[in-house]
Parts: sequence; C-alpha cells; structure tokens
Amino acid sequence: MKLNFEKNNGLVPAIVQDYMSKEVLMLAFMNEEAWEKTQSTGFAHYYSRSRNKIWKKGEDSGNTQIVKRIFVDCDQDTVLLFVKQNGGAACHKGYRSCFFREIKSGEVKIIGNKIFDPEHVYKKDK
Amino acid sequence: MKLNFEKNNGLVPAIVQDYMSKEVLMLAFMNEEAWEKTQSTGFAHYYSRSRNKIWKKGEDSGNTQIVKRIFVDCDQDTVLLFVKQNGGAACHKGYRSCFFREIKSGEVKIIGNKIFDPEHVYKKDK
Repeated sequence: MKLNFEKNNGLVPAIVQDYMSKEVLMLAFMNEEAWEKTQSTGFAHYYSRSRNKIWKKGEDSGNTQIVKRIFVDCDQDTVLLFVKQNGGAACHKGYRSCFFREIKSGEVKIIGNKIFDPEHVYKKDK
Repeated sequence: MKLNFEKNNGLVPAIVQDYMSKEVLMLAFMNEEAWEKTQSTGFAHYYSRSRNKIWKKGEDSGNTQIVKRIFVDCDQDTVLLFVKQNGGAACHKGYRSCFFREIKSGEVKIIGNKIFDPEHVYKKDK
C-alpha cells in the first residue's frame, strides 16, 4: 500500500501500541525506507529527525519492537503498529511508555513505571 | 505544560484513544491554540493542515470527543488523549477508527466496522 509522504515533508507519524495491553508506547516518524524496512524485517524502524537517519528501534538499548500487526489510516498518512516490546520499555527515559506524564487540572503527574535507568543503558561515549 | 511546537512547523501530533477500550481512533495535529482550547473546553480541537484552521472535532458530524485524560510524551512534542467518542465513530469515512485497514502479507484488508454513511452526514453544499 502506497502511503502519502508528501503531507509532512517525507515523513508519516507511526503510533506504536502494545499488541496485548493496547497501551500506546510511543510515536515516531517513518520515511519511505523505514516503512519498507519495518515491513520486510518485522522489526520497527523509524526516521530520526534530529540525527537525520533511519534507526532500528532498540539498536542501542536492545529494546527492539517485534511488529505483530500493521494498520493504515483513512488518509494513508499515518500508520499504527501493534508490537511486542522487548525489554519491557519503549521510552529512552526508561519508562514503559513515552506517555508517562498526565496533565490533570493543569498539574503534571508522573503516572508511568520506570523499567530501566537510562544512564546504565545508553553509554555516554557511544 | 509547555509543548515543543518547533519540531514540526508549529504542530504536534495528537493520538486519540478510546478511554475505555483503548482502541486508537485517530491521529490529528494541534497548534498551540488547539492545544489550549482542548484543555479549556474539554472537547478535542485540532488544526487542519488542508483547511489551515482550527476545528472542533465533530463540529459538522456531531461526533465530538469529550476529553477524559491527557498525556504528554518524554520529548513534549506529542500528546495522547483518552476520549469518549460521541456518535460512535471518529473517522470521516464512517468507521469507528480511522485505522480500519490492516496490511497482512502485503494485502490490505478492511477490519473496521462502518458506523455511518458519510454521504448522509456531511452535506455536499456545506
């Protein structure tokens, strides 16, 4: 299926959901190559806007994502992945989900569980 | 909480999830005004890139979204809403979720349920 990469400078947002619990783990962007690699390898690949390159999720941390199901939206400009999250955490800050903060009556509360300590996982000299 | 609107031309992606079933219903973009209106009114507001304006979800169809919970991601450049979807359908094509198509071994399959007929809901002369 052809996606519409034109609307957002060659990138489509990819929503990532745990395939069992349905928890939303993260959102990342894919360019056409990342979209194809995700399908051909069965592991989630994204495009890093800050590093300007494709990355395989978990290549540093080991927290890769095995793609279980792939959905495309009505406008063909957003994708949704159901994944099995290896290592138990998707967020580079060590939380299971990147959405570990809730806004409630204007206050920010941490509601997520920390799975790992980022300082032990991402080596600084890398 | 201040969001980072710089990374994506003044817009942040907003993932919309049913607050009970956890089904992902849609993804839309918010500018700063839509983000503030969503919080102050309790109804989801987005920014339309094609029409270049803010819209209240459901203003034409009646399928508004009552915001139950709001989450912000680690980089403060994506939000996640838990909503009660009025009218039972979030997608302008009449499906409950915009993600009504699945890709399986290269084939596209419709897996969603059609709740309404768009031709009866969106008047052409509007």
